[in-house]
Amino acid sequence: MPSEFSIIRTVEFSETDMAGIMHFANFFYWMEACEAAFYRSLKLPIISFVPGNVVGWPRAAVSCEYKAPLRFNDVVQVKLLIKEVRNKAVIFVFQFRKTSEGIALPAIVAQGEVVVVCVTAGADGVMVAQPIPAEVRAMLQVASPENHTG
Amino acid sequence: MPSEFSIIRTVEFSETDMAGIMHFANFFYWMEACEAAFYRSLKLPIISFVPGNVVGWPRAAVSCEYKAPLRFNDVVQVKLLIKEVRNKAVIFVFQFRKTSEGIALPAIVAQGEVVVVCVTAGADGVMVAQPIPAEVRAMLQVASPENHTG
Amino acid sequence: MPSEFSIIRTVEFSETDMAGIMHFANFFYWMEACEAAFYRSLKLPIISFVPGNVVGWPRAAVSCEYKAPLRFNDVVQVKLLIKEVRNKAVIFVFQFRKTSEGIALPAIVAQGEVVVVCVTAGADGVMVAQPIPAEVRAMLQVASPENHTG
Amino acid sequence: MPSEFSIIRTVEFSETDMAGIMHFANFFYWMEACEAAFYRSLKLPIISFVPGNVVGWPRAAVSCEYKAPLRFNDVVQVKLLIKEVRNKAVIFVFQFRKTSEGIALPAIVAQGEVVVVCVTAGADGVMVAQPIPAEVRAMLQVASPENHTG
Repeated sequence: MPSEFSIIRTVEFSETDMAGIMHFANFFYWMEACEAAFYRSLKLPIISFVPGNVVGWPRAAVSCEYKAPLRFNDVVQVKLLIKEVRNKAVIFVFQFRKTSEGIALPAIVAQGEVVVVCVTAGADGVMVAQPIPAEVRAMLQVASPENHTG
Repeated sequence: MPSEFSIIRTVEFSETDMAGIMHFANFFYWMEACEAAFYRSLKLPIISFVPGNVVGWPRAAVSCEYKAPLRFNDVVQVKLLIKEVRNKAVIFVFQFRKTSEGIALPAIVAQGEVVVVCVTAGADGVMVAQPIPAEVRAMLQVASPENHTG
Repeated sequence: MPSEFSIIRTVEFSETDMAGIMHFANFFYWMEACEAAFYRSLKLPIISFVPGNVVGWPRAAVSCEYKAPLRFNDVVQVKLLIKEVRNKAVIFVFQFRKTSEGIALPAIVAQGEVVVVCVTAGADGVMVAQPIPAEVRAMLQVASPENHTG
Repeated sequence: MPSEFSIIRTVEFSETDMAGIMHFANFFYWMEACEAAFYRSLKLPIISFVPGNVVGWPRAAVSCEYKAPLRFNDVVQVKLLIKEVRNKAVIFVFQFRKTSEGIALPAIVAQGEVVVVCVTAGADGVMVAQPIPAEVRAMLQVASPENHTG
């Protein structure tokens, strides 16, 4: 029952901007990629747009604080922490740390928070919030608070 | 019956990369935006993913040649030219020119070509090519060749 | 002395995702585009990476709350409000509203907040925060609080 | 002396569009990521924007043909092949193949071609083409033609 999870990713040239650093919006793509890898690690098909069996996880709110820039070719750890599991929503915290020789350095260069809502398709095709399916809920465990207050 | 169409667009900060110029892949988003504006100008609902009435225009092939860089805040004209209308496909040419006081300068800074195929959803939901609907075909007219050989 | 500013922008096909709605990260590009247009409206060259005269506005923190989805071809107003002007930072609020026949509808579909820090290049080329230049500060005026608490 | 190189990458949610498939422009980001990984594998610092030692590789022309769609969570091999090494330019071919249990399937779902020009900064800071540095050229070897005509 995981409460944290991480991926390693390299800053691409296209992710930089004319200031020579990773553009701030790209951190949100990395959070999403980490979340998707987390879902895959659970081996549950928990995103589906098959009619009759729609499960999606749109974002209700997102935020990110930036402490230090990332640059082209930086190799970065993104760590997912589960902050809270509500009836129909999960709050994830994501921490970005540069790595050196495969080891994450202590300093957090950026930290994000994402509130995702579990939805399905209502009668008219519009997304409506639904309780998180039991088999997904069983896989989620809140991380210790001290881990995500860095 | 239009054979050409253009939009004006400004290079955004996020579209630059660490070389200080617009990233090459962004030209394709601009071509797509110009094509979508062209479709809107025809006042035909020619992209639809409503089940039973799917019409899409996926790309079979795209290309772009880059002559000069674009920079943050450059105001640029993207001109769409219709090079060829086939039974199930259209070939568009897109020309990028900087503008000065609203007037496109003569030099082409980039030129792209896009082959789009008209598709609908087959029995199994997979996209299959279909002849371009008559009311769309009636709206398209090939531009003079000399216009898109710059 | 503006305290608010707005742009109108259309949702592009490339900005949607497989859920059929504008991907959440794209709202940040739109905020940045609105901010850049605001700077251009001030007619001050307030972003520069010319050595010796560097002025940048990196983000220290960003957030966005999503109330309703945006879809392909939606025409949307992005309104910039100045929430706070600090010595070295500005806090902007951005409100997204769909439009109908050029008029912004009352409902806010998304609202973001962005803390930008004014920086210049230090002796070693690293960005350091600096007081907002006086001629820029003179152009900024905080909007009435009731405008950005929607 | 490598003549081909490959990476494995997973289609992210943000890379899909409302048609449910990877947006066509994203293939160019994947080509660039593969090229950057190739450069890193050569252990040469061959992209630099340090004044006095600028080496960049802007694109003069790019193209891509699409044979089959990619979908969210598809695991894809991108193979780089060197088609031609000119005095100041390299032509790369990139082949995209889905994988199954880590093995690339035979079918090519997309194939791209990219002409990159080796540049440095001229006296006025403008990029000018330069002969490919000898130590880089020594690392490049053209792949057999039959490998990139699929």
